[in-house]
Amino acid sequence: MRVPRPPTAPPDGAKTATISYRVPFYDTDAMRVVHHARYVHYLELARIEYLDLHDRPYREYVAEGLHFAVTGLEVRYQQAARYDDRLQVTCWLAWLKRVSLAIGYVVRRDGELLATATTEHALVSDDGKLVAIPPARHALLAAALAP
Amino acid sequence: MRVPRPPTAPPDGAKTATISYRVPFYDTDAMRVVHHARYVHYLELARIEYLDLHDRPYREYVAEGLHFAVTGLEVRYQQAARYDDRLQVTCWLAWLKRVSLAIGYVVRRDGELLATATTEHALVSDDGKLVAIPPARHALLAAALAP
Amino acid sequence: MRVPRPPTAPPDGAKTATISYRVPFYDTDAMRVVHHARYVHYLELARIEYLDLHDRPYREYVAEGLHFAVTGLEVRYQQAARYDDRLQVTCWLAWLKRVSLAIGYVVRRDGELLATATTEHALVSDDGKLVAIPPARHALLAAALAP
Amino acid sequence: MRVPRPPTAPPDGAKTATISYRVPFYDTDAMRVVHHARYVHYLELARIEYLDLHDRPYREYVAEGLHFAVTGLEVRYQQAARYDDRLQVTCWLAWLKRVSLAIGYVVRRDGELLATATTEHALVSDDGKLVAIPPARHALLAAALAP
Repeated sequence: MRVPRPPTAPPDGAKTATISYRVPFYDTDAMRVVHHARYVHYLELARIEYLDLHDRPYREYVAEGLHFAVTGLEVRYQQAARYDDRLQVTCWLAWLKRVSLAIGYVVRRDGELLATATTEHALVSDDGKLVAIPPARHALLAAALAP
Repeated sequence: MRVPRPPTAPPDGAKTATISYRVPFYDTDAMRVVHHARYVHYLELARIEYLDLHDRPYREYVAEGLHFAVTGLEVRYQQAARYDDRLQVTCWLAWLKRVSLAIGYVVRRDGELLATATTEHALVSDDGKLVAIPPARHALLAAALAP
Repeated sequence: MRVPRPPTAPPDGAKTATISYRVPFYDTDAMRVVHHARYVHYLELARIEYLDLHDRPYREYVAEGLHFAVTGLEVRYQQAARYDDRLQVTCWLAWLKRVSLAIGYVVRRDGELLATATTEHALVSDDGKLVAIPPARHALLAAALAP
Repeated sequence: MRVPRPPTAPPDGAKTATISYRVPFYDTDAMRVVHHARYVHYLELARIEYLDLHDRPYREYVAEGLHFAVTGLEVRYQQAARYDDRLQVTCWLAWLKRVSLAIGYVVRRDGELLATATTEHALVSDDGKLVAIPPARHALLAAALAP
């Protein structure tokens, strides 16, 4: 079994969000590169920006006691990032179902591909129960998918 | 595309390593569960124990300017962990090649399955070049695989 | 103004707690030493052990909606820790008042002093209000102070 | 002994740097506030900006094998920060000596004071030896102090 290679670009027509990130020293490790666990944070920053742009601020979910719990994570690392690198993380909605969705990500440094990733999420309430994505949210998210 | 479901148990006969971990408050987030990125650290702790038991301490690789760089990561989250939970993380060598290998992981809480994971690694030198796993190391690692 | 030098040993007769900690790779940074922010986690691990031994498990505070919020933090770094070092962190109650307390810490590696620290805490409820330390807890904590 | 209260504003005439920071979910803990250790990262981000503005990019120190190792840290927490808060962190040079310096910090949320802090640093080489701050750097840093 091999960790699959997530797509290196969004599907045609999918709405995207991109954040810029300057690598702080605290993201590096003794190999003098960014520790692989830190990329999981970078994905989260891009995802928050995506919701801001194409759905609504994630804090509004939280305020209603709703969370997009992470149920799956997959990262394929191609090149190392280093201290003070300027990264660009682009993400898009890969698929959308009744209670769950997936986001695709590409991490680049000045155009060079560093990593690709996918996260899967299920909407849950504060007590951890699965919840259908509310219709108004589902409609906005569906409109951001590739046609 | 879906994040695949890594195996929930080691293959028969594979050597394993298991660590215990008590969840500190700093691993939790405002959902009152362990943040998903923290599991990536748990995998690292189990992997280090595995090398201690079945190969050699990882610091001896580092002292020779060698690193098992992470090239792939995949986690499937099933149940949330919480503050002060006692976790058990078991891992095993899933496959082994000339310069790369993969480790499988299961995270449990008192027997309950919380997450499964796979990491893939390539051996690299301090300057990031791929290096064949030294024969003495390869032999020991091969002996830890499922027969 | 200088960051003061916290005491390098507990006062005579104070009860203490000591944890062992093996430095994981994810605690290091590109200086090839432990990043200074990570010590704040080490203090937390020692503090939790202290409550286990001399008061009650911290999760019992949390279950009652109580938290020892950190109101002050002070660390004096003397020597760097490195990957795979085995550290010992010892802590003790430095002072105790009606709603607040302070803990002193020493971080050592095989007897060598690496850092000293102090944290100050106030007991707060889930909504952030100051709360008097409950009498049963205050009595146990007072008994752990230096006489 | 009490953790002292660092100054809540830069001295008159000191050059300053200010960063904006939007609190990500991964900075929060199960008290639903920012974990106290994360502020240490915020200070680092502000310090890097300060060097960019008033000295030179920190990566140029690193490229020469020089590091401003943290030798002291002090934080006084006044109000909790929460998920998605927009923070402003301002810092300034508090004092400057031959091999060491200190930086003062204020963390605010829309003008409200959340925390104050001081870090102390010594310039060290890659092998951890103390190094005099190079004259060209010392001159620029001295010019950024309060007159």
